[in-house]
Amino acid sequence: MYLGKSTGKPRVVIIGGGFGGVNLARKLKGADVEVVMLDKHNYHTFQPLLYQVAIGAIESDSVAFPIRRLFTKQKNFSFHMAEVLNINTTGNTVSTTLGDVHYDYLAIATGAGTNFFGNQQMEHFTMPMKNLPEALNIRSLILQNLEKAAVTTDLSERNALLTFVVVGGGPTGVELAGALAEMQINMLCKDYPDLKPEHMKVYLAEGKPKLIAAMSEQASVKAKQFLTEMGVIIYNDVHVTSYNGFDLEIDNGVSLKTRSVFWAAGVRGEVPQGIPQNVVVRGARIQTDEFSRVRGFENVFAIGDVAAMITPQSPNGHPGVAPVAIQQGGHLAKNIIKIVKGTAPEAFVYKDKGSLATIGRNKAVADIGKLRFQGFFAWLVWLFVHIMTLAGFSNKLVVFCNWIINYFTKNTDNRLIIHYFNNETMMTEQVAK
Amino acid sequence: MYLGKSTGKPRVVIIGGGFGGVNLARKLKGADVEVVMLDKHNYHTFQPLLYQVAIGAIESDSVAFPIRRLFTKQKNFSFHMAEVLNINTTGNTVSTTLGDVHYDYLAIATGAGTNFFGNQQMEHFTMPMKNLPEALNIRSLILQNLEKAAVTTDLSERNALLTFVVVGGGPTGVELAGALAEMQINMLCKDYPDLKPEHMKVYLAEGKPKLIAAMSEQASVKAKQFLTEMGVIIYNDVHVTSYNGFDLEIDNGVSLKTRSVFWAAGVRGEVPQGIPQNVVVRGARIQTDEFSRVRGFENVFAIGDVAAMITPQSPNGHPGVAPVAIQQGGHLAKNIIKIVKGTAPEAFVYKDKGSLATIGRNKAVADIGKLRFQGFFAWLVWLFVHIMTLAGFSNKLVVFCNWIINYFTKNTDNRLIIHYFNNETMMTEQVAK
Repeated sequence: MYLGKSTGKPRVVIIGGGFGGVNLARKLKGADVEVVMLDKHNYHTFQPLLYQVAIGAIESDSVAFPIRRLFTKQKNFSFHMAEVLNINTTGNTVSTTLGDVHYDYLAIATGAGTNFFGNQQMEHFTMPMKNLPEALNIRSLILQNLEKAAVTTDLSERNALLTFVVVGGGPTGVELAGALAEMQINMLCKDYPDLKPEHMKVYLAEGKPKLIAAMSEQASVKAKQFLTEMGVIIYNDVHVTSYNGFDLEIDNGVSLKTRSVFWAAGVRGEVPQGIPQNVVVRGARIQTDEFSRVRGFENVFAIGDVAAMITPQSPNGHPGVAPVAIQQGGHLAKNIIKIVKGTAPEAFVYKDKGSLATIGRNKAVADIGKLRFQGFFAWLVWLFVHIMTLAGFSNKLVVFCNWIINYFTKNTDNRLIIHYFNNETMMTEQVAK
Repeated sequence: MYLGKSTGKPRVVIIGGGFGGVNLARKLKGADVEVVMLDKHNYHTFQPLLYQVAIGAIESDSVAFPIRRLFTKQKNFSFHMAEVLNINTTGNTVSTTLGDVHYDYLAIATGAGTNFFGNQQMEHFTMPMKNLPEALNIRSLILQNLEKAAVTTDLSERNALLTFVVVGGGPTGVELAGALAEMQINMLCKDYPDLKPEHMKVYLAEGKPKLIAAMSEQASVKAKQFLTEMGVIIYNDVHVTSYNGFDLEIDNGVSLKTRSVFWAAGVRGEVPQGIPQNVVVRGARIQTDEFSRVRGFENVFAIGDVAAMITPQSPNGHPGVAPVAIQQGGHLAKNIIKIVKGTAPEAFVYKDKGSLATIGRNKAVADIGKLRFQGFFAWLVWLFVHIMTLAGFSNKLVVFCNWIINYFTKNTDNRLIIHYFNNETMMTEQVAK
């Protein structure tokens, strides 16, 4: 099977077209190497806005970009939609569903998937949200449950259909809970005259004592205050102990009847087969040195969410966020160019530009440098950062403006059940790969 | 099961939220009736642009609108997402997946589905395009085949993957064939450097001696000329005799190896169970009188594609196009108001505002009144008409502008394989309902 351009130049194979992989490939434009990207999807996903797709606020297609389109003008680049089966580090080849591909340098940028911590019941009955098909499944499930709630005469069933539980109070969980609360406040009674906002309940369950623990104390406190004001019922210091698709048990003694549990409680690296187990550390991340080299290898690198760059400066690796992946991708590109030229690579230094999380309209929290601010201005900053990043990936500015208009007018016109989600024959096995 | 508002006012039940059903419900706003709409989807589909979704030129969500959203301000309206199982015309009830619903007046606006004329092989192996899930399946299939073509070393297989056959030369078939040809001209070599436009072939097979036979001779001739200039290979006066997912046989002696056959060769009314067979005429349409009353009934009506209003002025019924459905919906609303008030209904008169079909950028054909024109100006008219209609349904103007920008810049950023389409375990049984 022919894969890649076979130009005779050193070949850099990148597994994964997320933030890290895409930036690595871009920064290799014009370099004296051949770049081959592999991804099981034909599109890059703008993950930070997946929760907006899940609640129907933006169009599913506007958070995804065809990978080929991102690189139409890059001559040393080729893309193949393929699933990686195995990495043969001794033979320097990657086995894929399309056949084998040789590499001189390999960059693993496979990102992270959902971590159910081995709990098969949660994996089976709760809904993860790490990719676009999963976000669309959530959208369908929410809307189907609202439709059912609008007609049932069984009050206990109606309450279960209108009880939404988010497990995990990190940025994703907080943003999803906030978006659900806004749906409850702004949309429910407009679109479902038979339902009242007070019929709907949004819960957020977090194992740690505070929300978005990676951010400042101020951000955490304010996020909790925003969510509480919006009606979200928050449990901290709790764990979900069981869920069978109907009854959810929490270890603070609370039992909830609910038909929708969203799992945002953890991530784990998507480590390809063939990477030795002894370099895989906590959270299924691949241990690298400060040059992004996988421990024990000279020509195999890992960047982004799947990598744990363990150095004296970062003993636990860097946080699993887009800026780390983008910076590591760009940095690795420079290093590969150096290595090819025979010069020494440079150590990676993470430039933390700050953290942002949005809770709802006019409500966000920001830690930027030493600044801590929350509310409307933080929300404007959040909007600006996302517009700029999204626009940088494609000419989606108009769509994004449309989304802002929707956001201001409180309309969400994308509440469409296009692929019916069968939650009777529960659940995650239904997700398209 | 509680369905509808039970206000004591006469209840109008509308089956179907297409152009006809939606306009009927809208024009009953403020009338002294209770309106209940049933649809198996929770959204209205803007069918005229489905082919643009199929080739990835516009976002899937922008041709669909949540039905509830269209009626948020209409107090006498309620919607239920339900599939109709049976109509009991003696008991005046509709059985649905949510339970039974009583009607005083029933409007059947179920539209048309694909007509395979009883050919199970075609139904199994070819791709229809009458709803949004079907259009998305086509999008996935086209893109998957391009990805496969880019890597295969088997030239015969590559040619089969790059051979696209549209069966049916009506407006839908012509528009789809034109859009495929534009993809070949503008996108293929940009995004797939390993493929060349001449590797791809687009065929259009039509049973009649001319294309878009419902339009003028001039429109038909010009459409054929446009398509031929764009490289489409057109067979008229032919029928497809067999297709097994690999080999397509046409009765002009041509055999084609192809992995993608799109079926746009016919439609048939979606007649609900319970409508007597003796009122179902050619094309599975329900025969009505000039008041849209189903033959033999006083309070059961049919409008739009599912109806054949057979009168001396229209011995074969009206064409199955959106303007007929919209006009019949609005007209029926007026008549129902009259009937409820005890005054006599008026006969329907179709105002033919003309026909338009677009073949590609700057290429459309138009028959408006006695005017026949083709080319750039017809294309502008086509754009204008679609913007106005789409904008009338929702505030999607911004999205539509985005689409026009894409159209001008020749970018199509929605080529996303979100739900993988498995064409090994062919085919139409995969389609979400």
